Amino acid sequence: MDKTKVALVGLGTVGTGVARLLLDYGDRTARHAGRTLWLEKAVVRDLSKPRDAELPAGVLTDDLAEVTDDPEIRCVAQLVGGLEPARSIMIELLESGKDVVTANKALLAEHGPEIFDRARQLGRSIAFDAAVAGGIPIITNISQCLSANGIESIHGILNGTCNFVISQMDELAADYQDAIREAQQRGYAEEDPTTDVDGSDAAQKLALLAHLGFGARVHWKDIPREGIESLSPADLKFARELGYRVKLLAVAQLIQDELELHVGPQLVHSDSPLADVSGAYNAIRVVGDAVGRVWFHGMGAGRMPTASAVVADLIDTVVGRTALTFRTLELWSEQPARVMPRESETASGRYYLRFTVRDHPGVLAEITSALSRHGISIASFIQHESSKHQEDKVPLVIMTHRTNEGATQKAFKEIREFKMVAGPAVRMRILD
Amino acid sequence: MDKTKVALVGLGTVGTGVARLLLDYGDRTARHAGRTLWLEKAVVRDLSKPRDAELPAGVLTDDLAEVTDDPEIRCVAQLVGGLEPARSIMIELLESGKDVVTANKALLAEHGPEIFDRARQLGRSIAFDAAVAGGIPIITNISQCLSANGIESIHGILNGTCNFVISQMDELAADYQDAIREAQQRGYAEEDPTTDVDGSDAAQKLALLAHLGFGARVHWKDIPREGIESLSPADLKFARELGYRVKLLAVAQLIQDELELHVGPQLVHSDSPLADVSGAYNAIRVVGDAVGRVWFHGMGAGRMPTASAVVADLIDTVVGRTALTFRTLELWSEQPARVMPRESETASGRYYLRFTVRDHPGVLAEITSALSRHGISIASFIQHESSKHQEDKVPLVIMTHRTNEGATQKAFKEIREFKMVAGPAVRMRILD
Repeated sequence: MDKTKVALVGLGTVGTGVARLLLDYGDRTARHAGRTLWLEKAVVRDLSKPRDAELPAGVLTDDLAEVTDDPEIRCVAQLVGGLEPARSIMIELLESGKDVVTANKALLAEHGPEIFDRARQLGRSIAFDAAVAGGIPIITNISQCLSANGIESIHGILNGTCNFVISQMDELAADYQDAIREAQQRGYAEEDPTTDVDGSDAAQKLALLAHLGFGARVHWKDIPREGIESLSPADLKFARELGYRVKLLAVAQLIQDELELHVGPQLVHSDSPLADVSGAYNAIRVVGDAVGRVWFHGMGAGRMPTASAVVADLIDTVVGRTALTFRTLELWSEQPARVMPRESETASGRYYLRFTVRDHPGVLAEITSALSRHGISIASFIQHESSKHQEDKVPLVIMTHRTNEGATQKAFKEIREFKMVAGPAVRMRILD
Repeated sequence: MDKTKVALVGLGTVGTGVARLLLDYGDRTARHAGRTLWLEKAVVRDLSKPRDAELPAGVLTDDLAEVTDDPEIRCVAQLVGGLEPARSIMIELLESGKDVVTANKALLAEHGPEIFDRARQLGRSIAFDAAVAGGIPIITNISQCLSANGIESIHGILNGTCNFVISQMDELAADYQDAIREAQQRGYAEEDPTTDVDGSDAAQKLALLAHLGFGARVHWKDIPREGIESLSPADLKFARELGYRVKLLAVAQLIQDELELHVGPQLVHSDSPLADVSGAYNAIRVVGDAVGRVWFHGMGAGRMPTASAVVADLIDTVVGRTALTFRTLELWSEQPARVMPRESETASGRYYLRFTVRDHPGVLAEITSALSRHGISIASFIQHESSKHQEDKVPLVIMTHRTNEGATQKAFKEIREFKMVAGPAVRMRILD
């Protein structure tokens, strides 16, 4: 059987998984590629570091030139994280004539236009299904399988760390700090989990999906985002009482030819398939004008699920499918954006509001009339009797009817300043 | 922009949807195909039949030769149902040099080897993502996106009619006949729903998935199957009481290098994403040795969801991806099967058993000792007090620990013959 030489750059968690699949399951990849994918080189920074993969002699190297100078290596999985030297390696690989597969969403979200343009100029291709939602092949599904559809919306649980932390808080009543520690111990959270828990990671992935699904060109930093840092067990409990779960959602939604984008914790009705996504799983709901609602659900991170996506991309590239897709889609090309972002203040939806109020007469009237002044009408309402330990403070939970982001922002800010409101106040969207 | 001429054969529900997408959304298909997909001809049997699509003058014809004789038509969606003349049309299209897209799973399940061999000999391709699970792109996901995985199992809710009927019975306490009538009124069931409700349709789809996912070559009629005709509201209620839902599942599962295949109603734990699939939706859980569990969930039938899959296949074919995939996968080629079917008696799993027994002393002891003789141990058990209306008969529900198919078959048969057992007896598997 013919063989095609491939290489890896980066041999961390995902790289080790990719090496294993290539080395231990060569017959399988050969069956799908019609040729053997031969792991010729694996480039690492530090040769002496202990690794979780046994490589044949001569494969491991710390010299990228052993890849770029070998014209027989056609396709390289670039698995170095972060922006630099990942960006330079990417460009160097393209310039030396390699088709590239990558799992680095931060790199694409930051330097996508430059990298994709360069690949096009050089007649090369880039595959990146592992960059979003790990083992779930959402990139191929949106850009190929659902290509007959006008995409109307994408709602994703795209950050496994956040979903794990929320699940721990929701199902085991863990507090936020304990849940983070548990996630770190299980390898679901970095030592510094900031970019996961503040919504940055989900926003980067959303920017990629919004480009693929809608032709939007939005920098991830311009996507309004909230994290899970201030999420309280109380809200998870109230949500359940109301028949909902809380999830960190990344949302891209077409409204009157403009694209609303945001990332933040939202209430998801327990009937929705997204409500049942727990632990480190990811899921994406795509609504297309022909197919209707489709859900994809699987492991969003981890060695082997992500390696599954990288190796599928290597196979697609070697077979030649990636080149065809890449050429046709013109991602991040000089084409103008097909859709413009919508001002988030004009976004419409239902909201969950929680205020901690002093249990005095008149407080309810004051709050409801403030909401009413902003045109916000109340769909449901919870106020339990105050417990002895909380002195005279009680939580007040309100679910609104459909209203808009700007109005609830203003009303929320106004009510928080009321003298009768003391303690935490929370505002979250509700998924339709 | 370049254009590629395409044609349709068959302008029923799905064909009309495909025509709409091609005619009304040409810019969209062009963007994904890199060229316009130009609907040149739509072949129908009866020109005078009223249709739900307005076609430009000259497109509609009752003469297949207008397609086969036109060398500029490269790709044809063959949407005629049943076996003949669908098979002959298929062969004729291939022989006249067309790449073919089809949604006809019965045709592929019955004549797959002949049709695929012919296409290979002629250097043509066949795409069939619409043949299984309608709008869910499960064919592309298994044969392309998950290609780095050894597939361990596929569990599918593949028949929307059955799922709708079960949902009606489960959620609205409808009886079977009323639920079927409702399905017919909504267009989810044929006038003669036999092949849907007896599990044949799901078995045909399963045979295709088993070939794609495992390299099995099994005729759908050789797959053990049970339908939903004898499903009773009582079992749906007991299942709920035990924390489960009942779904008609099509299962392909690798066990010690052999493939177990079967179709039938099963209990699915309410925590499983498959439990929440209701109405006419389909869903598939795939377990891969790298990716772990992945779920796909969407509309399994209907005009536009199925058209979504057909048009995606047309785009894949015109772009050239289908040819690459088709050539590499060697579907239904002369290659020997990679896996042999497993004798269903040796299959292992947990079981739900319901017996209707006379409420006499000793009946429980007799049943439990019969189970014990066959090595079956009991995990849980329900017996409610008998109601006045049922005289002295009570239902007895047993959930077993893991055991095997052969043993439960024998024990079930034996217990049914007991004098104390009178009335319906039910045996269903439980999804792990």
